[in-house]
Amino acid sequence: MAQPSSKKHRNHPQYELLYHPGIPGRGEFIRLALEAAGVPYKDVARDEQDGYSTVQQICNNKGLESTDGNPPVFSPPALRIPGAGKDGKSALVIAQTPNILLYLGERLELVPEDDEAGRFYVQQLALTALDLNNEMHDSHHPIAGALYYEDQKPESLRKSQDVREMRIPKFLSYFERTLKHNEKTGNGQGLYLVGDKLTYADTTVWQVLDGCMFAFPKEMEARKQEFPALLGKFYENVKEESGLKEYLVSKRRLPYSMGVFRHYPELDRQ
Amino acid sequence: MAQPSSKKHRNHPQYELLYHPGIPGRGEFIRLALEAAGVPYKDVARDEQDGYSTVQQICNNKGLESTDGNPPVFSPPALRIPGAGKDGKSALVIAQTPNILLYLGERLELVPEDDEAGRFYVQQLALTALDLNNEMHDSHHPIAGALYYEDQKPESLRKSQDVREMRIPKFLSYFERTLKHNEKTGNGQGLYLVGDKLTYADTTVWQVLDGCMFAFPKEMEARKQEFPALLGKFYENVKEESGLKEYLVSKRRLPYSMGVFRHYPELDRQ
Repeated sequence: MAQPSSKKHRNHPQYELLYHPGIPGRGEFIRLALEAAGVPYKDVARDEQDGYSTVQQICNNKGLESTDGNPPVFSPPALRIPGAGKDGKSALVIAQTPNILLYLGERLELVPEDDEAGRFYVQQLALTALDLNNEMHDSHHPIAGALYYEDQKPESLRKSQDVREMRIPKFLSYFERTLKHNEKTGNGQGLYLVGDKLTYADTTVWQVLDGCMFAFPKEMEARKQEFPALLGKFYENVKEESGLKEYLVSKRRLPYSMGVFRHYPELDRQ
Repeated sequence: MAQPSSKKHRNHPQYELLYHPGIPGRGEFIRLALEAAGVPYKDVARDEQDGYSTVQQICNNKGLESTDGNPPVFSPPALRIPGAGKDGKSALVIAQTPNILLYLGERLELVPEDDEAGRFYVQQLALTALDLNNEMHDSHHPIAGALYYEDQKPESLRKSQDVREMRIPKFLSYFERTLKHNEKTGNGQGLYLVGDKLTYADTTVWQVLDGCMFAFPKEMEARKQEFPALLGKFYENVKEESGLKEYLVSKRRLPYSMGVFRHYPELDRQ
């Protein structure tokens, strides 16, 4: 079981992350939120014997329910929360990365307190970062997720050029300006995107930036001067946050490999 | 100003939709929610003189705020809510389609009452429908949104084949099973995806189905036998819902043209 450094003392259920075992992928957004909050969780595919068959049974079956009377799941990640079902005993299962973050955000105190607009801004930023996550996936899989990269390489070269030259700067500009907006209104000190403390917008945007740096190191290095607040102070600070600092050097943090973020040198800036 | 048939009598602010004027696009998910609730709104680009320059000023500027002290917007649609700003006087501006639906869902009574799990399921379904919406966009723009279809036609032919043969059936199966799950638990009568009355999951899934039928009429016709509950009773019923029935035959409902859903016969099933 994942045992992050615990800084929260309120009672939490035993959250169960249902995701693939070998890649950070979309599961990583959920892990970062839980780790930042210091709340223990079970990463089912990695922490349980035969855990991945449990994940597949719940997330990839063709039946009318996922498990415990919950409706079907389209694809992982999903979050299973024991005791949160309608009867107060069975488990609740929810899916879709931004939906899981929405559910956890308030419970893990990763949203601004007493600030409804701030909560919608956090979700807005997470959704936008997840859009860039999808575009990064498509940079090496523009035709079909079910085909190998090698079967869509000419298309990937074209797609990656657009992602690097047009899309990444548009996203980075948006995050940089949001960061500066928050600082300008007297909040965040350039460390946080919304309000005065870490939210799941910060962890989600950070993970996508980190993944982009892995996939396109030359491109991202070249962009540093354009977006110094985001790629400098903000990016570096998130790594130092309590919970995350310990997590990022632990074995629970999986290396990038053949998931959403892949390093094919030919797709990077030449 | 849009004047849908009003069935709700509680007080609503004058919601302002900020979106492109000539296509249903992602703005349509917001329009359908407001129309289903019978709540009047301003479709700024269409209802105001120079409205589209207001939309662009708010949604596409390169500054540190969108308007009224709100942080930047990545791209339309956005929703402007007069009087909902922090000071209770200025406007709140929020963006990202699923985030706007989340904001409106409760206010427009388009989520299950007293059912937190149901509310997360509604958002889960809307997010998943919006994922299919993105894949439909990519079926004719797999390389770059900034290029013409004609400049990415061979890639579109490959991409569309995957979308039609692999992705659409996966999404339709998920929605069909969710619909049947709801019915099996004694709710919805095959008319609603979550609970016993219309939610923004229904309107959002419906809009994507309708767009797919426009873009790929042969493909969707061929799929009807596989997914009879979704493409039959459910699809037909949403069109008859109060508010939507009047809207869909009104001039406020824009025809599909060169937006997310496009009909290129060569991309459809042959």
